[in-house]
Amino acid sequence: MDFHQELQKLIENYRAHYLPSVSLDLVIFGFSQNQLKVLLVQLKKSNDWLLPGGRVGKAENLDDAAHRTLRERTGLDQLFLQQFHTFGQVNRLTYFSWPETLKRLGGVEELIAELGIDDTNYRDVSVGYYALVDFTKVHPTPDSLTDECRWWDVAQVPPLLFDHNDMIGLALKTLRRQLSYQPVGYTLLPEQFTMTELQTLYETILGRSLDRRNFYKQMMSYNILERMEKRPTIPSSKAPYLYRFHKERYEQLLNAENLSIG
Amino acid sequence: MDFHQELQKLIENYRAHYLPSVSLDLVIFGFSQNQLKVLLVQLKKSNDWLLPGGRVGKAENLDDAAHRTLRERTGLDQLFLQQFHTFGQVNRLTYFSWPETLKRLGGVEELIAELGIDDTNYRDVSVGYYALVDFTKVHPTPDSLTDECRWWDVAQVPPLLFDHNDMIGLALKTLRRQLSYQPVGYTLLPEQFTMTELQTLYETILGRSLDRRNFYKQMMSYNILERMEKRPTIPSSKAPYLYRFHKERYEQLLNAENLSIG
Repeated sequence: MDFHQELQKLIENYRAHYLPSVSLDLVIFGFSQNQLKVLLVQLKKSNDWLLPGGRVGKAENLDDAAHRTLRERTGLDQLFLQQFHTFGQVNRLTYFSWPETLKRLGGVEELIAELGIDDTNYRDVSVGYYALVDFTKVHPTPDSLTDECRWWDVAQVPPLLFDHNDMIGLALKTLRRQLSYQPVGYTLLPEQFTMTELQTLYETILGRSLDRRNFYKQMMSYNILERMEKRPTIPSSKAPYLYRFHKERYEQLLNAENLSIG
Repeated sequence: MDFHQELQKLIENYRAHYLPSVSLDLVIFGFSQNQLKVLLVQLKKSNDWLLPGGRVGKAENLDDAAHRTLRERTGLDQLFLQQFHTFGQVNRLTYFSWPETLKRLGGVEELIAELGIDDTNYRDVSVGYYALVDFTKVHPTPDSLTDECRWWDVAQVPPLLFDHNDMIGLALKTLRRQLSYQPVGYTLLPEQFTMTELQTLYETILGRSLDRRNFYKQMMSYNILERMEKRPTIPSSKAPYLYRFHKERYEQLLNAENLSIG
């Protein structure tokens, strides 16, 4: 099957099985040690990068579609995945001309005409989700329209197709805000970790350094960390304490409103 | 024009001018003195209440569609209006059977058949927005499908059509969380107000009382309040100070990430 046939089949499949006018895009952040990355895919036969995305099945819940897409792209399931914003500017797909992008894929002019796609009538409202994963544990998988998946440092993301740079910006802003009222990191740290490791995680996501004492106070105030015994094998009295998350309280806090006011 | 014709015209209009599969719903909170209300509309020829909603024009930005819908329902423009979640459960329109609802409107069986609407294939993903207005300044206007608009106390909302009770719950949760990191109330208080009036606003939205000193400290820490001179006409030295919002800093804070951590 050549690429044109593949694309045609894909679009026929879309029309038969997926909702029109609605898509979803995933901002998959990858953390490991002191690096924060984001997963991008490269469109076939092009140099263009974009976020991995998907569509919503006609009989599929929106959140299920997002989890399915994440699973298809990363092989991971049951991840922290959160809807953060729905993008609905009329021209969002024409920030970069969509027909031009398709044309560059080769031999698809007639398909574009047949689909009636042009800059003025092709439009999706796209629901943005973000996930936070340990990128050393993920093996990203390209889909049929993309050649390559690659982790990019969040500070070095290239210009992307469509409004995808804006999506990353808002996802990062939302994730950072979330740190101030919800705990993050259950899946990103070893089961037992030092306060310094936890602080490094927060500093990496926030992109700035934090005061050590204030951080300690705030974390302990959440009442979700259990301090472990020091390992007897380490002789020094200066060995750092190890902590682990109290899973149940962590989940409670994730679902709580947790207002600091009053 | 009878109601059937009106409905048919409405749906033809939808098909010609609006995106398929996407709708929007508005949770319009109304505050005045110590009451928090929400605006509901009643479906024609029924006892069923629901949130005011709308659709997105084929050439209309999503946010513009939300503002237009708000303007159409309340006569107000340029309001604080915020997207909070997109609702995409497959069965969200069938929590209450949609065809049954249409049928109750009278004489529309053939229209339902013509439209191909049944519980299994009629589906919208709906983008939820919430607004906060002074309900004494709003004159709600029903649309062509609804008989009446009414302010309901948030604690006394009746069972609503579709997933609209869930929408109000999540909008309220989001608004309450927002109070902990962003200032709210610019349009809900007189230009000059006492700290007690501001605290009453917060307590009413949160649905619980707040510690007076902590509240004062937190509000002053935002650095958005200007303390005014006491009115010389009030003799008592115990006359409360009046404050007003510093508009520019208020806007800055609305757009800032404003992390309390670290």
